[in-house]
Amino acid sequence: QAPARPARLGLCAACHGANGHAGMPGVPHLAGQRLDYLRDALKQYRDGRRNVPVMRAAIGPVSDVELDALARWYSAQAPQGNP
Amino acid sequence: QAPARPARLGLCAACHGANGHAGMPGVPHLAGQRLDYLRDALKQYRDGRRNVPVMRAAIGPVSDVELDALARWYSAQAPQGNP
Repeated sequence: QAPARPARLGLCAACHGANGHAGMPGVPHLAGQRLDYLRDALKQYRDGRRNVPVMRAAIGPVSDVELDALARWYSAQAPQGNP
Repeated sequence: QAPARPARLGLCAACHGANGHAGMPGVPHLAGQRLDYLRDALKQYRDGRRNVPVMRAAIGPVSDVELDALARWYSAQAPQGNP
């Protein structure tokens, strides 16, 4: 069962796409990625272990509950692969 | 057209799977990931910007040409998503 669309999805979708199919250079696809990996990555972006300023800025104001909803959303999307 | 199977694939496949469908906790799926993102990630693991000792150890002895072949391989695999 797909999770409900997160309220903060637009924040991620600008670069990763609402369905997790990224169209921008250097931006990873998120659709169908492992949930545990997405959660770890978000923690690492937040605390600076993965030092990507745009990610840190984007998720700075997002609560842990909201981040978890976003990770669940993307993990549940169907991946598309590359053309 | 799918790239030829890289000689060093076994090094990655132990955790990420030969087709990029990871079965281990915390290990990302790589199948169908963007090629530019995979290349960037490998550089970051190699130089320590992404400080993951097992990744640094794994790719330390791998040449740039081999790394590129591995990134191309995984990017070209069909993603599977999560059950």
